[in-house]
Amino acid sequence: MAETLACNDVIYAFDKAHEPVKRVASGTTIEIETYDCFENQVQSAETKIGGIDWDRINPATGPIYVEGAQPGDVLKVRIEKLEIGNQGVMATGPDLGVLGHRQEEMASKIIPVEGDYAIFDDKLKIPLNKMIGVIGVAPEGEPVPCGTPGAHGGNMDTTLITEGATLYFPVFAEGALFALGDFHAAMGDGEIGVSGIEVPGKATVTLEVVKEGALRHPLLENEDGIAFLVSKPTLDEAAKAAVEEMADFLLPRTHLNVADLAMMMSAAGHSQISQIVDPLMTARFFVPKYVLEAYGVTLFE
Amino acid sequence: MAETLACNDVIYAFDKAHEPVKRVASGTTIEIETYDCFENQVQSAETKIGGIDWDRINPATGPIYVEGAQPGDVLKVRIEKLEIGNQGVMATGPDLGVLGHRQEEMASKIIPVEGDYAIFDDKLKIPLNKMIGVIGVAPEGEPVPCGTPGAHGGNMDTTLITEGATLYFPVFAEGALFALGDFHAAMGDGEIGVSGIEVPGKATVTLEVVKEGALRHPLLENEDGIAFLVSKPTLDEAAKAAVEEMADFLLPRTHLNVADLAMMMSAAGHSQISQIVDPLMTARFFVPKYVLEAYGVTLFE
Ligand SMILES: [Ca+2]
Ligand SMILES: [Ca+2]
Ligand SMILES: [Ca+2]
Ligand SMILES: [Ca+2]
Ligand SMILES: [Ca+2]
Repeated sequence: MAETLACNDVIYAFDKAHEPVKRVASGTTIEIETYDCFENQVQSAETKIGGIDWDRINPATGPIYVEGAQPGDVLKVRIEKLEIGNQGVMATGPDLGVLGHRQEEMASKIIPVEGDYAIFDDKLKIPLNKMIGVIGVAPEGEPVPCGTPGAHGGNMDTTLITEGATLYFPVFAEGALFALGDFHAAMGDGEIGVSGIEVPGKATVTLEVVKEGALRHPLLENEDGIAFLVSKPTLDEAAKAAVEEMADFLLPRTHLNVADLAMMMSAAGHSQISQIVDPLMTARFFVPKYVLEAYGVTLFE
Repeated sequence: MAETLACNDVIYAFDKAHEPVKRVASGTTIEIETYDCFENQVQSAETKIGGIDWDRINPATGPIYVEGAQPGDVLKVRIEKLEIGNQGVMATGPDLGVLGHRQEEMASKIIPVEGDYAIFDDKLKIPLNKMIGVIGVAPEGEPVPCGTPGAHGGNMDTTLITEGATLYFPVFAEGALFALGDFHAAMGDGEIGVSGIEVPGKATVTLEVVKEGALRHPLLENEDGIAFLVSKPTLDEAAKAAVEEMADFLLPRTHLNVADLAMMMSAAGHSQISQIVDPLMTARFFVPKYVLEAYGVTLFE
């Protein structure tokens, strides 16, 4: 039977000084329950979004100590399963998101989840793309609030972080101190209004320490390819840094020279936006599986 | 029989002062031949990329005067067919593209096109995604070199500009003065090395004046949805401006209020990168067809 962690063990920042709420061996599969990003405070259309407790935003369940993980290692996190609640909530408002300057008061919306769709209103049903907004490990330095992304992961709000994907995080603290939260029933790349369709839920993940790995930013693998997820103060910086990370990763593994690698990445790789509304911007650079297979690129095993 | 325009009528800048090389009625379908972006100067691996004539870069075939097009109208351009040559070329070098700072000399590569693939090297075959890099109309003010994108279109290097897509351009000059060039056999979003797989080719397009339209930036429609293509000095500005354009377009057509529109676009729309290597950066905001259908949104007809 899989290990479990209930959603009452939450953190509001990723912090290497935190006491772990659970210890697991490398290779453990664990079911982790999560609140939604409002800690389930908005349950009906009558809840005034402005009246909720803003100190209880973006809770992540954890942290989990993975035995054997040391700074310099890589934590491999496979998302085996992602289950979500049957009611979501969205919010937006003044100074929130790209269109915040056009708004004068906080607004929110209850969005039922029915079958494979989120029922946005009486006209629009949005196909689900279940995903995890906040996922990561303790950062190297100061604590990082769960609303901020970074090299440790955190609030990356990346649509690719979904069932079947595997994430590789640089480990900065003993035990890695893994946590996750902030599930979305659906979200578009960019998350331009500052929220996805926020839902509570349960993720089943397998946590594994990779000793020979080395990473500066989170790396994602899915059946289509791999992507570095990089968060920086501007989108320009994030997009460029994601390219540089991918280049450093592929140079020794493809044995291409820099010019050939640049041309290959220009023709076959993709610069993509994760989110443009959090305190840092998150971009990714994606390289398809057929490229990795052509050059015999392997990740860490 | 369709009208034709050969590739010897080229421009190196979009310019409202240009004499048109052809006049067509609104609704005309025309076959337009193009050189590759190096004006076909690189034909073999022996050509020194540094030795080519850099004044003959990014030629666009045209300009075509479309009868009835007046400033303030919209030019609708449907890409009926896109044919490419059987040999492509890529180039990169110092200060070119995201990885230019790691390179010490210009490099180029001849890339044969065979069937549905571009043969990058003896290991990698890249699936074709034929596309048009440079396409647009004369700009409002000063001439804009064909290597620069803008509100008039131009060097937008957007992977969605392909067979079956329809583009809508704001018209700034009498007759619109349409031109296109810079085809790619394949390119990834971002075009991080500064070139796609550059090929000569022939596009069959239908040019139509839309009188009741009004646009500030190019709008693209394909079978999956619509996207505004916006070019700005930074990617952050481009991505945000594309969101604003889409919001202004959808507000009167969906009858949603700003908050609901922001939430809808956050959940179902996508902020995407076109290119991050030209003199301006090009981003797009994409909204799927199912959203347009749900709210009964029509474009200009
Ligand atoms: Ca989030
Ligand atoms: Ca969220
Ligand atoms: Ca181009
Ligand atoms: Ca090109
Ligand atoms: Ca370009």
